[in-house]
Amino acid sequence: MKSGKRLNVGMIGHGFMGRAHSNAFHQVGHFFESSYELKLKVICGRNQAQLKSTAAQWGWEEIASDWEALVERKDVDVIDICTPNYLHAPIAIAAAEAGKIVLCEKPLAMSVEESERMAKAAKNVPTLVWFNYRRVHAIALCKKLVDEGKLGEIYHYRATYLQSWGAEPASTDAWRFKPSEAGSGAMGDLLSHSIDLALMLNGAVDEVSALVQTFAPGREVDDAVLVLTRFANGSVGSFEATRYAIGCRNRNYFEIHGARGAIRFNLEDLNRLNVFDAADAAEVQGGHDVLVTGPGHPYTSHFWPPGHILGYEHTFILTMADFLESLEKDETFHASFQDAVHVQRVLYAVEESARTKSWTSPAMQFANS
Amino acid sequence: MKSGKRLNVGMIGHGFMGRAHSNAFHQVGHFFESSYELKLKVICGRNQAQLKSTAAQWGWEEIASDWEALVERKDVDVIDICTPNYLHAPIAIAAAEAGKIVLCEKPLAMSVEESERMAKAAKNVPTLVWFNYRRVHAIALCKKLVDEGKLGEIYHYRATYLQSWGAEPASTDAWRFKPSEAGSGAMGDLLSHSIDLALMLNGAVDEVSALVQTFAPGREVDDAVLVLTRFANGSVGSFEATRYAIGCRNRNYFEIHGARGAIRFNLEDLNRLNVFDAADAAEVQGGHDVLVTGPGHPYTSHFWPPGHILGYEHTFILTMADFLESLEKDETFHASFQDAVHVQRVLYAVEESARTKSWTSPAMQFANS
Amino acid sequence: MKSGKRLNVGMIGHGFMGRAHSNAFHQVGHFFESSYELKLKVICGRNQAQLKSTAAQWGWEEIASDWEALVERKDVDVIDICTPNYLHAPIAIAAAEAGKIVLCEKPLAMSVEESERMAKAAKNVPTLVWFNYRRVHAIALCKKLVDEGKLGEIYHYRATYLQSWGAEPASTDAWRFKPSEAGSGAMGDLLSHSIDLALMLNGAVDEVSALVQTFAPGREVDDAVLVLTRFANGSVGSFEATRYAIGCRNRNYFEIHGARGAIRFNLEDLNRLNVFDAADAAEVQGGHDVLVTGPGHPYTSHFWPPGHILGYEHTFILTMADFLESLEKDETFHASFQDAVHVQRVLYAVEESARTKSWTSPAMQFANS
Amino acid sequence: MKSGKRLNVGMIGHGFMGRAHSNAFHQVGHFFESSYELKLKVICGRNQAQLKSTAAQWGWEEIASDWEALVERKDVDVIDICTPNYLHAPIAIAAAEAGKIVLCEKPLAMSVEESERMAKAAKNVPTLVWFNYRRVHAIALCKKLVDEGKLGEIYHYRATYLQSWGAEPASTDAWRFKPSEAGSGAMGDLLSHSIDLALMLNGAVDEVSALVQTFAPGREVDDAVLVLTRFANGSVGSFEATRYAIGCRNRNYFEIHGARGAIRFNLEDLNRLNVFDAADAAEVQGGHDVLVTGPGHPYTSHFWPPGHILGYEHTFILTMADFLESLEKDETFHASFQDAVHVQRVLYAVEESARTKSWTSPAMQFANS
Repeated sequence: MKSGKRLNVGMIGHGFMGRAHSNAFHQVGHFFESSYELKLKVICGRNQAQLKSTAAQWGWEEIASDWEALVERKDVDVIDICTPNYLHAPIAIAAAEAGKIVLCEKPLAMSVEESERMAKAAKNVPTLVWFNYRRVHAIALCKKLVDEGKLGEIYHYRATYLQSWGAEPASTDAWRFKPSEAGSGAMGDLLSHSIDLALMLNGAVDEVSALVQTFAPGREVDDAVLVLTRFANGSVGSFEATRYAIGCRNRNYFEIHGARGAIRFNLEDLNRLNVFDAADAAEVQGGHDVLVTGPGHPYTSHFWPPGHILGYEHTFILTMADFLESLEKDETFHASFQDAVHVQRVLYAVEESARTKSWTSPAMQFANS
Repeated sequence: MKSGKRLNVGMIGHGFMGRAHSNAFHQVGHFFESSYELKLKVICGRNQAQLKSTAAQWGWEEIASDWEALVERKDVDVIDICTPNYLHAPIAIAAAEAGKIVLCEKPLAMSVEESERMAKAAKNVPTLVWFNYRRVHAIALCKKLVDEGKLGEIYHYRATYLQSWGAEPASTDAWRFKPSEAGSGAMGDLLSHSIDLALMLNGAVDEVSALVQTFAPGREVDDAVLVLTRFANGSVGSFEATRYAIGCRNRNYFEIHGARGAIRFNLEDLNRLNVFDAADAAEVQGGHDVLVTGPGHPYTSHFWPPGHILGYEHTFILTMADFLESLEKDETFHASFQDAVHVQRVLYAVEESARTKSWTSPAMQFANS
Repeated sequence: MKSGKRLNVGMIGHGFMGRAHSNAFHQVGHFFESSYELKLKVICGRNQAQLKSTAAQWGWEEIASDWEALVERKDVDVIDICTPNYLHAPIAIAAAEAGKIVLCEKPLAMSVEESERMAKAAKNVPTLVWFNYRRVHAIALCKKLVDEGKLGEIYHYRATYLQSWGAEPASTDAWRFKPSEAGSGAMGDLLSHSIDLALMLNGAVDEVSALVQTFAPGREVDDAVLVLTRFANGSVGSFEATRYAIGCRNRNYFEIHGARGAIRFNLEDLNRLNVFDAADAAEVQGGHDVLVTGPGHPYTSHFWPPGHILGYEHTFILTMADFLESLEKDETFHASFQDAVHVQRVLYAVEESARTKSWTSPAMQFANS
Repeated sequence: MKSGKRLNVGMIGHGFMGRAHSNAFHQVGHFFESSYELKLKVICGRNQAQLKSTAAQWGWEEIASDWEALVERKDVDVIDICTPNYLHAPIAIAAAEAGKIVLCEKPLAMSVEESERMAKAAKNVPTLVWFNYRRVHAIALCKKLVDEGKLGEIYHYRATYLQSWGAEPASTDAWRFKPSEAGSGAMGDLLSHSIDLALMLNGAVDEVSALVQTFAPGREVDDAVLVLTRFANGSVGSFEATRYAIGCRNRNYFEIHGARGAIRFNLEDLNRLNVFDAADAAEVQGGHDVLVTGPGHPYTSHFWPPGHILGYEHTFILTMADFLESLEKDETFHASFQDAVHVQRVLYAVEESARTKSWTSPAMQFANS
């Protein structure tokens, strides 16, 4: 790896996300030039045997078990949080107060209030929330097309995030069903991704009507959540996130219809974007099946020649690449803690709407914030 | 055509649906055996020049301009209504009271009350509502699989009916934008189809939350309607119907997820059904792309060998074939006027929910009916 | 039906194709204006019981058993041949010599020589060969785009016609496996269609190298045929026709790549054409998924509004519509007998190439013709 | 990285493949347990500036310019060759004679004779040829299904490898158009992959008929090659490889039809396999769209949970993982140099067939070898 300004990373948590982040820290320097060099310094967790094994496999220099000590270490520049959700706030706040750069998995917090405290504590340090799907190269292309007005005025935004494992959970998913550790079910896990993308692509949400459903007897978190929305830009939309969509592993899907075009995307086919252009000659109008691997596509020139596809893990590498660039340029990275506060507000409005069975406005509730 | 018991048809209206019905009356005898023979006796409408031309092209024996006289004619057995929506009730009631078999385009009525009067007037005559998509051969296969329990307990029902012509209406569509003639926009035109299919496939709707949207300035009917639903069987669902989905011509789409499988269907690809079977070996699980042209598929043996696809118009032919069979067997045909009353109730609940911004139950409102 | 110049049709044969033609004769007047009116006058065949039933179902006025008498009848204007292949030549020649308009199923003949005698005999009467796929509306769009140069210079033409029923033939297919009645297997049945389309879309074939394969023990016709080609326009191509492609019912598929674009088509999805346009902006390049139902598409305005799909049977209706128009304009219809002679020459070159295991040129062999 | 038996790698060449291999050497230890640990020791090439940059980015310890010295170094255990094709043989033979483990890009050699000399020289050292597509997880699943007889007797094997950059080559591709450096065009570059997969999946090729085409004026290597084949198992097949398929970036596609099922694969969608199972109930028969990301799929448990897709680069990681496992078990790895000799024989037969315009048998030509 090139010599550059070294950033020592301390990562707390070592599950699925711990592996995805470790990989990103390793890989970003292989595909992107940066004046920063990431060092996998300390990995911290409770299961020491597993921690040792992960550290060995991914090249973490040290292991640790006490996150409170870790966030104070002078030789650590970056704290990366991939613990269960209930630990995000205490760790992030402590790390921010210790002046660290703070990276945190999504959903950022267990409540709006918690997220606001986190954002406030971190207002002087660089922050990153791992809404990694913002960096899917096809979604980056989508963002570009929307921002350039290629779709014209937006009429419809429609998102579904469909998984099936809620019907047959593996034991490693246990914490995800505990309200005290996860906060919610499909809502924080899946809907948060869809809301973050919608806010990025289509702007603020004015009001929502929602229903929340738990299918598994005795389960205390939601298995599914469905939402109607009015957006501030005048478009209308719907969202659905579920862990009970038999047949779907990871179908994070959205469609946007505007006056001049339309777009469809499916995470299970993440190298493609379907783009309809109303300016095409009538006889050949139809969604373009765009293989987003270049030339002319966001990010792709950093990897392989056109036609060679990328995978899930690249979304984390790209998130880190953009984050390092934002550090270099001293610019605010998105999604920041503050961006994630907006997601939390929408999620809370969704919960409130489902609880009260009434339309609820994320903005109104936080008029004083 | 074979000799059989002749049924003289009088059709009122002669637009797009008039042509689709004329075709069905002609074609049903070519592909299905029946003891009934349909005779295209009288076509009735206001534009005499166009009426003559249509009569000549489709072989209607006579033309007429007075529907009130027509429904009283002794030599007419069947009245088929394909006028703008506001005329459905007066014609249907008069025809039923004259003892005619009554066929009527959808949506059946301008209001629940109107539809109930129609159903009451017609309770002693055979009725048919042209919810033709029930007879898409792929949807018939879907119905069979659902009824046989191949999907197990249903968790999710998700339907979108996406068209785009609302953004660029043709002049021939004028009546469809007048509240006094159409009653509603996408709601009666498109959502009615989706609701009818949902009631057929997934049963009663317990409650809805909806939003209605008009994009075109000054337009008095809805361009789009979005709905969340709870079904009586415990599943949750969503519906969307719009005439502003740029890029979509006639995308009547639905997905169903159950404990044992899932199904996807798109009217623009109506010879196919996508079927996921959770009982498949894990390594080859994935939606089956079923080309529903036989062997072993509903209806298809009446037409061409396996692999030869059917079109939109066949849904009308099949509707008529099943209707004639119901006459022969003296059984109730579905969708009957009574079935359509249920659709009207759901549509009304959707309107009420959108107006009052609250969850609304179709059943509660009609407790006394 | 409108009054016009009546053409009395005598049809010989009454199987699958007899039904498809009967339907076309009935339907063409419903969807197309013409000064000709077709009358289903006589249907001729050997199985009188079945003939009666077909006549009753499709409205043929008379039945007959002697084709030699039929072709001489003064009150018959058109002879339509849908018998097994070995009867095409004697019937067509007799009918042509009797001055009839002659329509004939494909493949036209059992040999090049036979087809040439047929073309010669019919040189003064209008002829039609039922290469119905020329009139698939999506293929008509393809032809338009190719002819307008939208694909630029053509580099590649690749066609496969995949069916599976050869592995499990039904008893009604018996004649299709007899060399004396069918002449060949997949070659005449399927490859003939692909060759006809290629000649229409991409022009003359210079030379071929082929292999022929029979999988079923004891079967005397080919189950599969594979061909490499050089076209006169400098492009290279391949063809495959098989009745042993398990999983494929009627996958008549082709792809064309040119300097400026590319096209893909699949008969099992015949309302769509996939069109790649190299002039699209790089970032949104990708095959357009064109739903060929209008607006602006060939033929479709005669049927239903955009978004309402057509089926297999419409290809026969459209063939007949264009044929009647060619009669009105006194123009040569394509595919004529002469066009089919070219197909036969390519098929013969394919057979010869497979037999001699050498490259064979269709043109060279017929230098004197 | 875990401590294990260290293998020092010396890589010669540093282009596209050099990056792909570097990545694989880095990543294999992150996802797979092995008693071997790879060390990126020396990278060797001619452009020292670029070499330095690559070494820095990928963490190669040293750079070198003299491959002849490199292959003799005592502290190097593995030689990895990703030079232009004409250098494969001299380097591989020298490395093998020096007792090194030898890894080599495909096509292995410029001729059959060269490949045989390489295989002979390397007969006592472990070898690997980078036919990386063998390790696409979906192709590994395909291999498993074929080997278990899930497709039954094979009838058809059909492969096309379609790219378009031959029509607009980038300057970095210059060597790929020089006969002296590349040996051939699409043939060695693309067809070699398709042939290798076919030999792995469907066994030996008995004979071929081929055509070779160059579209670009003055170009000395082939732009396209088309082949018919008879396989030793009785199936028939076709191959096409081209760099002139406008619209296709990297469409390495194949279809297999057997008595009991069928399979389709497309490299541009490499996480999916389409599997038709003739044992499915007739009414739901249709290609299964299998998202090959687990559970129960080859390799996938080493990476991310089901539903999270892999990319192009993982094929190299998996190749290396299997190779290290073969070292541990002291088993022969495939594709070995010997396997690649078979590919060369088929390629040579293809060239010969195209040159002589006659069917050519790979086996016959090498009866004495």
